[in-house]
Amino acid sequence: MGYMHTYLDVDLTTNKIHEKKLDLDLAKKFIGGKGLGAKILYDTLKPGVDPLGPENIILFMTGPLTGTSVVTSGRWCIITKSPHTGIYLDSQIGGKFGHRLKRAGYDYILVRGKADSPCYLHVSSEGCEIISATELWGKGTFETEEILRQKHPKAEVASIGPAGENLVTFANIMTDKSHMAGRGGAGAVMGSKNLKAVVAGGTFKINSVHDNFKELTRTFRNKVQNDPGVQNRHRIGTMMWVNMSNQAGFLPTRNYQSGVFESAEEISGEKMIEENTYAHRACYGCLIACGKANKFDEGKYAGLDVEGPEYETTALLGSNCGIQNLAAVAKASQLCDDLGIDTITSGATISFAMECVEKKILKQDSVENLEFGNDEAVIQMLQLIAHKEGIGVLFSKGSRVAAEKLGNDSSDFAIQVKGLELAGVEPRGSFGMALAYSTADRGACHQRCWTPSAELRGDLTRFSMDGVPKFVKESQDERSACFSLVVCDFLPFNVPEMVDLLNSATGFSYTPESYITTGERIWNTTRMFNVREGITALDDVLPKRFSKEAMPEGPAKGKIVSEEILEKAKAEYYSLRGWDSNGIPTKEKINELKI
Amino acid sequence: MGYMHTYLDVDLTTNKIHEKKLDLDLAKKFIGGKGLGAKILYDTLKPGVDPLGPENIILFMTGPLTGTSVVTSGRWCIITKSPHTGIYLDSQIGGKFGHRLKRAGYDYILVRGKADSPCYLHVSSEGCEIISATELWGKGTFETEEILRQKHPKAEVASIGPAGENLVTFANIMTDKSHMAGRGGAGAVMGSKNLKAVVAGGTFKINSVHDNFKELTRTFRNKVQNDPGVQNRHRIGTMMWVNMSNQAGFLPTRNYQSGVFESAEEISGEKMIEENTYAHRACYGCLIACGKANKFDEGKYAGLDVEGPEYETTALLGSNCGIQNLAAVAKASQLCDDLGIDTITSGATISFAMECVEKKILKQDSVENLEFGNDEAVIQMLQLIAHKEGIGVLFSKGSRVAAEKLGNDSSDFAIQVKGLELAGVEPRGSFGMALAYSTADRGACHQRCWTPSAELRGDLTRFSMDGVPKFVKESQDERSACFSLVVCDFLPFNVPEMVDLLNSATGFSYTPESYITTGERIWNTTRMFNVREGITALDDVLPKRFSKEAMPEGPAKGKIVSEEILEKAKAEYYSLRGWDSNGIPTKEKINELKI
Repeated sequence: MGYMHTYLDVDLTTNKIHEKKLDLDLAKKFIGGKGLGAKILYDTLKPGVDPLGPENIILFMTGPLTGTSVVTSGRWCIITKSPHTGIYLDSQIGGKFGHRLKRAGYDYILVRGKADSPCYLHVSSEGCEIISATELWGKGTFETEEILRQKHPKAEVASIGPAGENLVTFANIMTDKSHMAGRGGAGAVMGSKNLKAVVAGGTFKINSVHDNFKELTRTFRNKVQNDPGVQNRHRIGTMMWVNMSNQAGFLPTRNYQSGVFESAEEISGEKMIEENTYAHRACYGCLIACGKANKFDEGKYAGLDVEGPEYETTALLGSNCGIQNLAAVAKASQLCDDLGIDTITSGATISFAMECVEKKILKQDSVENLEFGNDEAVIQMLQLIAHKEGIGVLFSKGSRVAAEKLGNDSSDFAIQVKGLELAGVEPRGSFGMALAYSTADRGACHQRCWTPSAELRGDLTRFSMDGVPKFVKESQDERSACFSLVVCDFLPFNVPEMVDLLNSATGFSYTPESYITTGERIWNTTRMFNVREGITALDDVLPKRFSKEAMPEGPAKGKIVSEEILEKAKAEYYSLRGWDSNGIPTKEKINELKI
Repeated sequence: MGYMHTYLDVDLTTNKIHEKKLDLDLAKKFIGGKGLGAKILYDTLKPGVDPLGPENIILFMTGPLTGTSVVTSGRWCIITKSPHTGIYLDSQIGGKFGHRLKRAGYDYILVRGKADSPCYLHVSSEGCEIISATELWGKGTFETEEILRQKHPKAEVASIGPAGENLVTFANIMTDKSHMAGRGGAGAVMGSKNLKAVVAGGTFKINSVHDNFKELTRTFRNKVQNDPGVQNRHRIGTMMWVNMSNQAGFLPTRNYQSGVFESAEEISGEKMIEENTYAHRACYGCLIACGKANKFDEGKYAGLDVEGPEYETTALLGSNCGIQNLAAVAKASQLCDDLGIDTITSGATISFAMECVEKKILKQDSVENLEFGNDEAVIQMLQLIAHKEGIGVLFSKGSRVAAEKLGNDSSDFAIQVKGLELAGVEPRGSFGMALAYSTADRGACHQRCWTPSAELRGDLTRFSMDGVPKFVKESQDERSACFSLVVCDFLPFNVPEMVDLLNSATGFSYTPESYITTGERIWNTTRMFNVREGITALDDVLPKRFSKEAMPEGPAKGKIVSEEILEKAKAEYYSLRGWDSNGIPTKEKINELKI
């Protein structure tokens, strides 16, 4: 039925595990994945709950298309209250875990409470058990995964590393080595619960209500296979963006001081493909295979064999830290994966630290030469942050918290929104992302709306907000539905086809319109969660760097995103959303969406 | 989703209980209830399995409409291999148990094996447990139900009485006091497994895939409420048939020696309603409320308070045993319910015994005056049969087995087909029922096709087989689908409405045509089960009485159902069914139906 109609409710405080029925009425309204998770989070948590306290919950969600024969159905997601931002968090993730969780017979797992001592969950077609993980505590995610895979053959592992154990607020949950539930610190939530890993293995069939499901997926697969964009993604992956961003003038460089990196070519996808890539890697059921396995044979990282890095990682741990060596970026990326820490936030936070040193706001002796371009300092910082040692303690909650402690107007260049660091597009070079970052539900995220393609294609006018509010709103709504199915943002997106697949899997009668309205319902639900935590229009803002400091060079030279232009765009955006001028959903809108 | 998507697989030999996933592909093809149960039975049992051995299984089935807001959704059913006939058995049953089983979270329970000692199953939203029933063994179903209800408040009980414990092959499973899974000895299968009862209680929501379900059920409910046939059923229940059958000349009388009973008025529904009925009784969610609570204030049964009797009970334990006193029939009916024994088969078997005494084939001293019209003999016989004492042993496997032992051509008037005794319509007075009885999948059953209404209305010509084969086939197919939903045969039947409800509940895309084809698929599945057990056209026959002895009196006076006319009707029926002349489904038909 798309659904397995069952979920697990695990209380680690009492060691009680309940198998419960999926609420189909809720699933009908919120689809699954992000949507259903957001609604459950909203309904379950009281406002003000400590994200690292036992009363927070963490949801391991699949959607009605997860684990099916639909391309990219390997996707699943994590929903929780973020310890990094204090607001709503969903982290979309790939690999093979979602498929296995579904085939274990569960649509999702809800974990609450806190275990007395380190443990992991083993979930299978026979049910769920809580097993001691004392001997795994302290281990990196690679070794953890290897040990648990040996112990549970044919199962998949989602685990945390030292960063999660040490409650670093941007700790990730990792699976299949290089896939992460990233950004907002879901790994720390697991760590706070003494939950080292979830292991899922199962063999239940995933059914569809309608018999045309296979035919629909076959047709869709052919379409995806023949899509030129997909073929490019297969060839070079997300790394295609390094040169493109740099040429467009929005590649984050030296803590967003510039959008042009003089050594972009050195860390580019084209160079990687030519010199390092030896295999393509895919999530479960995906023919895009955007992942790239790379080897580095020369220099100080000779012998390095790694999956990745991806574009965002390269932008933040590479150009934004002034690193000119792709092997160093790859090494840092791999280290982040093993430590279980977010590459984007790590890169942004370390580059912030480097600028603080540059500006003499920060004095420290943990790391030698904590300055732009020093790859060894980056790697040292990652270790210190993950283990909360030395200067790592100060930066273990990201740039916002560090800036609050460092003062001296350092908040102006702590590059974050609502506590979440910006991703690999610099907003003075991409005005669209200025609004997208400001209004994204989990803080400055690039996945809820991605304007650069439209800006480079000319669908949106560069350095202008014309049409941006509508574009951002529509994209956020559509992505919310997509992340509820759950499928991947790398699909050539087509709402009618998604609706056909959803209806065939579940028997529902979505129309393209009601599907998008569901996306809007979900987006409003996450907003209501955030509003309840105190978020208003005052939080939908960018750091001052982008409104005060003109872009020094490149195609965006001289550009700022002024407060005026952003506020005007926000006003239009709120109006389109049916929110009041404080950015709060109106009662009419909430009633209209039947939340 | 109509479905709970979960079933219980209980092995009483090993005490292992597994919660398993409903196979949705199978559900799509066989709907639920009868259809799904038949398919599971066919796939699970090897041919030739002893129905009372641990390798037989018994299925407690709900369907996608069970427990919903659809009128008559209180229906559920039992599927097993019958110890009475040695072939396929489904028993359709009402009460409130099906609703509770569904809300406990299960579409069905499959029970296999045999417990070491008496036990019962307790099924709830928290799962299933096997509990000792040693202290309940030997008790009647009324007391059993009362004790278990007290122990498990808000739960419903399906239990067996002494007849089931003693493996009487026509022992019933009883629920809500007067509702039985009857005819083929499902109670004995429970008894053979040392399973005294199943208790079900639960509070899960039963969802529908489409939001229009409530609206559809409301519209349907209004239609049912305003239907004149339903209003009549509410007023007088099945008992309306006593006078109608008698006037038409097909009321079974004195072991089917006649179709006219001189004292029919005495045991009629009209008299009952006027003198005895004080309340209407309904199954879960049913507004028809065809059940009648009766009190008898005079005569030797003064003080008797009983639900029922129903028409078939009255025909078999009343006129067919020559009993002229409705209170006696009601008393016998109530005793059957408490002992957990089938009223139709008991009446038919006792009347057979009476005729054997009359014909001096049977000599016995267990019962004084075992002769037509002696109500005390009937009651004594019921006790002896249920407890397998005295002459009861000989009749505890029904009339076919007794006739085999008694010889002297007594088989000619052992009124059964395939081992199952005929119900309350005498075939010389209703030619349609001659074919319906001969070809019904569980033996001579009246529920798979009921021709009398059509014959009395003139839709079928009386004393003729014109149009009967087509009528019987279509009715069997339609009923098979209806018993898979599961809903009641007392609904004013309307295929398009049933299809709309089914689709709304499940999300499936049935059409009226594919729904009827599904009924045909189910009917062929039960036939294939029976063929595997050795059934052919040679078994689709009536006892010789109906072809050799002309009806002595009444509207059908002089009529016989000759072997020729039945064989000709069978040939036409087989041809319509796509079966060969031996009554075996052809490969083409099996392929066409995708069984």
